[in-house]
Amino acid sequence: MELEQLKGIKEYLPEEQEIREYILDVLKKNFKKYGFRPIETSILEAYEIAASKYAGGEEILKETYQLTDQGKRKLCLRYELTFKMAKLIAENPTLRLPLKRYEIGKVFRDGPVKSGRLREFTQCDVDVAGIKSPAQDAEIIALIFDVFKDLQLPVYVVINNRKLLFGLFETCNVKEKDFINVALSLDKLEKTCQKDVEKELREKGIKEQSIDALFDLLAGQKDIKDNFKKLEFLKSKCGNNLFDEGYNELLLIFDCLKLQNIKDVYFTPTLSRGLSYYTGPMWEVYLENSKITSSVGGGGRWDKIIQGFLQSDREYPATGMSFGLDIIYNALLENKTKLTGFERTPKVLIIPLDKLEPCIELATELRKNNISSSIAFEDKLSKALDYANKEKIPFVIVVGKKEIESEVFGLKDMQSGKTNNLTTKEIIKELK
Amino acid sequence: MELEQLKGIKEYLPEEQEIREYILDVLKKNFKKYGFRPIETSILEAYEIAASKYAGGEEILKETYQLTDQGKRKLCLRYELTFKMAKLIAENPTLRLPLKRYEIGKVFRDGPVKSGRLREFTQCDVDVAGIKSPAQDAEIIALIFDVFKDLQLPVYVVINNRKLLFGLFETCNVKEKDFINVALSLDKLEKTCQKDVEKELREKGIKEQSIDALFDLLAGQKDIKDNFKKLEFLKSKCGNNLFDEGYNELLLIFDCLKLQNIKDVYFTPTLSRGLSYYTGPMWEVYLENSKITSSVGGGGRWDKIIQGFLQSDREYPATGMSFGLDIIYNALLENKTKLTGFERTPKVLIIPLDKLEPCIELATELRKNNISSSIAFEDKLSKALDYANKEKIPFVIVVGKKEIESEVFGLKDMQSGKTNNLTTKEIIKELK
Repeated sequence: MELEQLKGIKEYLPEEQEIREYILDVLKKNFKKYGFRPIETSILEAYEIAASKYAGGEEILKETYQLTDQGKRKLCLRYELTFKMAKLIAENPTLRLPLKRYEIGKVFRDGPVKSGRLREFTQCDVDVAGIKSPAQDAEIIALIFDVFKDLQLPVYVVINNRKLLFGLFETCNVKEKDFINVALSLDKLEKTCQKDVEKELREKGIKEQSIDALFDLLAGQKDIKDNFKKLEFLKSKCGNNLFDEGYNELLLIFDCLKLQNIKDVYFTPTLSRGLSYYTGPMWEVYLENSKITSSVGGGGRWDKIIQGFLQSDREYPATGMSFGLDIIYNALLENKTKLTGFERTPKVLIIPLDKLEPCIELATELRKNNISSSIAFEDKLSKALDYANKEKIPFVIVVGKKEIESEVFGLKDMQSGKTNNLTTKEIIKELK
Repeated sequence: MELEQLKGIKEYLPEEQEIREYILDVLKKNFKKYGFRPIETSILEAYEIAASKYAGGEEILKETYQLTDQGKRKLCLRYELTFKMAKLIAENPTLRLPLKRYEIGKVFRDGPVKSGRLREFTQCDVDVAGIKSPAQDAEIIALIFDVFKDLQLPVYVVINNRKLLFGLFETCNVKEKDFINVALSLDKLEKTCQKDVEKELREKGIKEQSIDALFDLLAGQKDIKDNFKKLEFLKSKCGNNLFDEGYNELLLIFDCLKLQNIKDVYFTPTLSRGLSYYTGPMWEVYLENSKITSSVGGGGRWDKIIQGFLQSDREYPATGMSFGLDIIYNALLENKTKLTGFERTPKVLIIPLDKLEPCIELATELRKNNISSSIAFEDKLSKALDYANKEKIPFVIVVGKKEIESEVFGLKDMQSGKTNNLTTKEIIKELK
């Protein structure tokens, strides 16, 4: 029997899962603080609906797990959470907007195994449907900083606006049909040199004049650090409706963030992400002082998806983002001292040497005070101590005849090795 | 496009999901208190392993969703969580026992759609592997009462022991091959009359003498209320190793529960559940004073599963239980006044009549104090008030010119309709 884990599919032991749950608790606490409410959509869905929603999205459909149930219905597994929100709105016409929802759940990708990508993983999404105002985008960016402050991970946000970017292209006489292609090349500027990007643009058939104009513009703003000044500089060079819309959205976002004294947001006019769905502001979150260079979260405004799916005349503006559970976990592990908000379970191991009853009574008292406790029901003293040590249980109480008679227990701190002789009341006071 | 929800597959809107998450938080808090730690196993698994684990379990295999990935690997969807724990132990030989784990996750059943059963639902399991002592079973029963006390749902537990039950059968000269069959019939006594059960036993080919002996025994204990006295009565009538083992286990469990002053546990010698996996104590949890008659949780000792799966000489005793999320949700809805531990999101809706900035500042202050707040960025006053009303948001703050100038805000309690004029500090004090 093959017991090896399937490739691309992870399972989490307590040591790891405990920290993952801590991250999810921080996310949920902050989502709620901002007025977001949970939903739970299904993992199984009708294949027909997935096929229609990704019509034209061959790539996605190819990576969607398909199956057939006993009733010969064609089903598939959830590929992402955003669409499920759109579907929920479509199915529940009485749902009141704005809908501020979060959803944390598994998604599935039938991708190539060798790529190292996970084929089953948890997405953490927070989105609003029904609010056009960029102040809502700003609020989601503020949420990012609250989340990572709680996790004690310093981060910065890189932001741009699709309309502003495409407005720049218009100013430089790039043809509209090339907008997305040019954006994809420009996005590589962070990683490769300008020369390579210029070469790529030429190969894509972009006119020399346009390329020159574009890099002139970008060179001019490059050394401006202040977001407002950077915006003003670009405005002094460009002027078209598309640019102005994007400019106004970013200006309002920066105003809102300034009000809240949020500083680590960097306007980067070459950033582009999710060009098939983001319509306005778009952003990515990166760690400060970390070896991890991939983003730990990202999002943007997606005003067209719900309307498109509903084939409705009504507008359904929406904005939101995803947090990367697995990468945040890796970031926390980089520096374990940051795991101070997190408490491992159990806190105390009670080891019976004599009668069991006093141990059960002691555990009951501790638990009444919400102090996580286990009883070593069967292990001998040395084995139980070894277990506590290896499992990193912070405190141990050995209960023998002497302790039972005196009702004073030795609370041993496993890290310092020191033992404190205390009554049950004192132990509770000490550990609470 | 067919937007109808697939039958047997539910999705949860905020109103419902918020309460489900509250239930899960209560479960997790109590699991942790007793020293249990989370794990997360995968939903996708190799079909080959499922087929081997359920070898002989045609029923289960028939209801397991199967699929094939792009690499032509045969996969299936997780059917239950217990087996995944056994598999995790098998795959991680360095894992230290006892392993006290909980897992909350989706499982999938490809059953007939018409039966009203869910085909995708959340299981909440808590189990220990590596402890033989019935004191551990007692601890899990104590956990039940802590969970339902927090949820403010009074419950009682019905308990029996497979060994004791089969010991009774031995005393009454039932043949061993008929034990499970007889147990299944006896379990119906709660719902049908003795006559029907006797008839069924006769049809199953059980000897008249055995049936008479069995019902004599049961009649004798029927009116004994006290668990200890009931045990003693049965002991005075029966005497074989199997009975004695079960008797001793139950006696220790009742001793432990008495220590903790837990009273609502009823020894019911006819109860039998999960006879294909439970080996010793087994129990079900029911609601007091409720129209809901199905159990809200159940469990027992399953000492043979892990060893059987590992084909090992080593013993892997295990015990634990499942809580029914959906039925607990229904129980809470029966009497909404019991939802006092639960706080809906958001607590406050801030409605801007004039400038947005002071509203953002107010929301930021409230959120800093962990008071869940939303801003009605776009809705006009009447629409925003209507939204707050229908969404049952408890408090509303309307921010116009006057409020901005005076820095005093009217905090409106949407239930009483009363408005309190307060500074930001006072609002925080009031709502915290």
